[in-house]
Amino acid sequence: MAIQHPYLMFLGDAPDQLAAKTANGVAQWRRDWCLGQLRLEGCKADLKLPNMTLEEAAEKGVKTLVIGVANRGGRIAPHWQDTILRALDLGMDVASGLHNKVAALPAVAQKAKDLGRNLFDVRHPAQDFDVGSGAPRTGKRLLTVGTDCSVGKMFTSLALEKEMRARGWKADFRATGQTGIFIAGSGVSVDAVISDFISGATEWLSPANDEDHWDLIEGQGSLFHASFAGVSMGLLHGAQADALVMCHEPGRPHMRGLPHYKLPDIADCIALTERCARLTNPNAKVIGFACNTSALSEEEMKRTLGELSDTYGMPAVDPVRTGVAAIVDRLA
Amino acid sequence: MAIQHPYLMFLGDAPDQLAAKTANGVAQWRRDWCLGQLRLEGCKADLKLPNMTLEEAAEKGVKTLVIGVANRGGRIAPHWQDTILRALDLGMDVASGLHNKVAALPAVAQKAKDLGRNLFDVRHPAQDFDVGSGAPRTGKRLLTVGTDCSVGKMFTSLALEKEMRARGWKADFRATGQTGIFIAGSGVSVDAVISDFISGATEWLSPANDEDHWDLIEGQGSLFHASFAGVSMGLLHGAQADALVMCHEPGRPHMRGLPHYKLPDIADCIALTERCARLTNPNAKVIGFACNTSALSEEEMKRTLGELSDTYGMPAVDPVRTGVAAIVDRLA
Repeated sequence: MAIQHPYLMFLGDAPDQLAAKTANGVAQWRRDWCLGQLRLEGCKADLKLPNMTLEEAAEKGVKTLVIGVANRGGRIAPHWQDTILRALDLGMDVASGLHNKVAALPAVAQKAKDLGRNLFDVRHPAQDFDVGSGAPRTGKRLLTVGTDCSVGKMFTSLALEKEMRARGWKADFRATGQTGIFIAGSGVSVDAVISDFISGATEWLSPANDEDHWDLIEGQGSLFHASFAGVSMGLLHGAQADALVMCHEPGRPHMRGLPHYKLPDIADCIALTERCARLTNPNAKVIGFACNTSALSEEEMKRTLGELSDTYGMPAVDPVRTGVAAIVDRLA
Repeated sequence: MAIQHPYLMFLGDAPDQLAAKTANGVAQWRRDWCLGQLRLEGCKADLKLPNMTLEEAAEKGVKTLVIGVANRGGRIAPHWQDTILRALDLGMDVASGLHNKVAALPAVAQKAKDLGRNLFDVRHPAQDFDVGSGAPRTGKRLLTVGTDCSVGKMFTSLALEKEMRARGWKADFRATGQTGIFIAGSGVSVDAVISDFISGATEWLSPANDEDHWDLIEGQGSLFHASFAGVSMGLLHGAQADALVMCHEPGRPHMRGLPHYKLPDIADCIALTERCARLTNPNAKVIGFACNTSALSEEEMKRTLGELSDTYGMPAVDPVRTGVAAIVDRLA
């Protein structure tokens, strides 16, 4: 079941721009889906969208109120409930990326049921999955993998979708995290799936398709992240990717959240990722690098990407600064 | 919170011995905890324990009614509920290994609450876990790993605990599946944990301990199983095992449940398992084989174990037929 757009982006009383990180991502990648933003008093985040009341949004045809904001504690504030109830009254569905579910608020659940509206708690998979079968399926797949968490896998996957579509290719971004799900309108938060079903959920997310169709699957974590590698492994096996793009942030001092863990050696990371991927797709291959070089000067960026490209014989890009055309060229 | 023994083993109307596989395992490894069995009309399973009514069990001091049986469909039969309610009335807790929860039966939940009894649904983790930290902890750990699922990891772990304790070592079996949890009285069904927390749940399961204490952690799946490798990976990272025992069933035609997947090459399986394990414990090493050779003659078994041992330079045992002393010798 897909989340219907256009969206009204609810920012609540987000204390700063970072608290609206999810909403930011949606406004960046699907600006035409976002008709406006709704900010409560004290809100310090701003998506530079038209400010809009619920009534105005309803009039303009908004289908879904998107709660893409973290307040302190990551929970739905009691005073947000009136806004949610009013949105339902006005004909909208509600989609939330918060940890606690909007569907767990009794008044919200009751009203949605009475009015026949949909509630989407995108961090919480709403369906049951089968265990992964490992059976091959038609169509082409690219999975973004990484040396670490939070190195730009979602951004890279979306940039690849955009570039492929611009070239007239059949391509679909497949979301595995909350921001991506709002952007795609559907998907699975794989890190919230029961662990027995990680690869099965990924198979479900990326079903058989035309032979010339590319699924661009958003990766999560890293095989070298001591907290999350189980998720990365299940995702890798379920994706059965033909092509892998290694996402990396040069110069990061340690694994995210784990000060006692260094970043892996790039060659090791490629080797292990390919080795594990080949269990379910013997042709899986890392075909390029996507780096977040935001901390580097233009010159440093060029040197870093050039060195990676020369050493490994494949394109190295920064999706923000150079675009991803070189990677798509490689796949062509 | 631990499941209190002694147990009364409830077999319901199990259609055959296999349906009581869990109960069988408990009776095999903790016979002294199992005071009796309760079989309903038509039950075809038998643990060779004294048949006992609930009233007799209560009188003999049974603390917990254990539902270690799968009926058709894996669900609690409506006519079992009277037995469960009566057990609660008589002062027992109830522990179940079924997919659907006893705690989800309203009458059972209400009575347990009213009487202050505990309900354990061991397939469903009852607590929240932190994400894995990857931080080292004191004490020694052994994890059973495998070329496939269902190759004897629980049995091997329990046999090692028994052998170590017989030698006066400090050793505790750590359960990661339902049968193991009944046997240990506690544990976590790791395949039912939310995937973000697999390694964290394993760290929780095997906390810091005395330097000369061994945790014998029950493994799950295989890094080469396309359905379940994510669980195996998280377990491997969370366990931070010093020693790994490779469990294997020689001659198995294909991966369990996946007819199109061959068993991995043993050397590959050792190499990949050690490589991944060393992320969180640089000294992790496969130190022996535990084989299920039940399909082999005595002579074939000796040849198979001898070849493995010679090729890899480490002990190869069948826990049932040869015992695991050779592996514990190696650790000594």
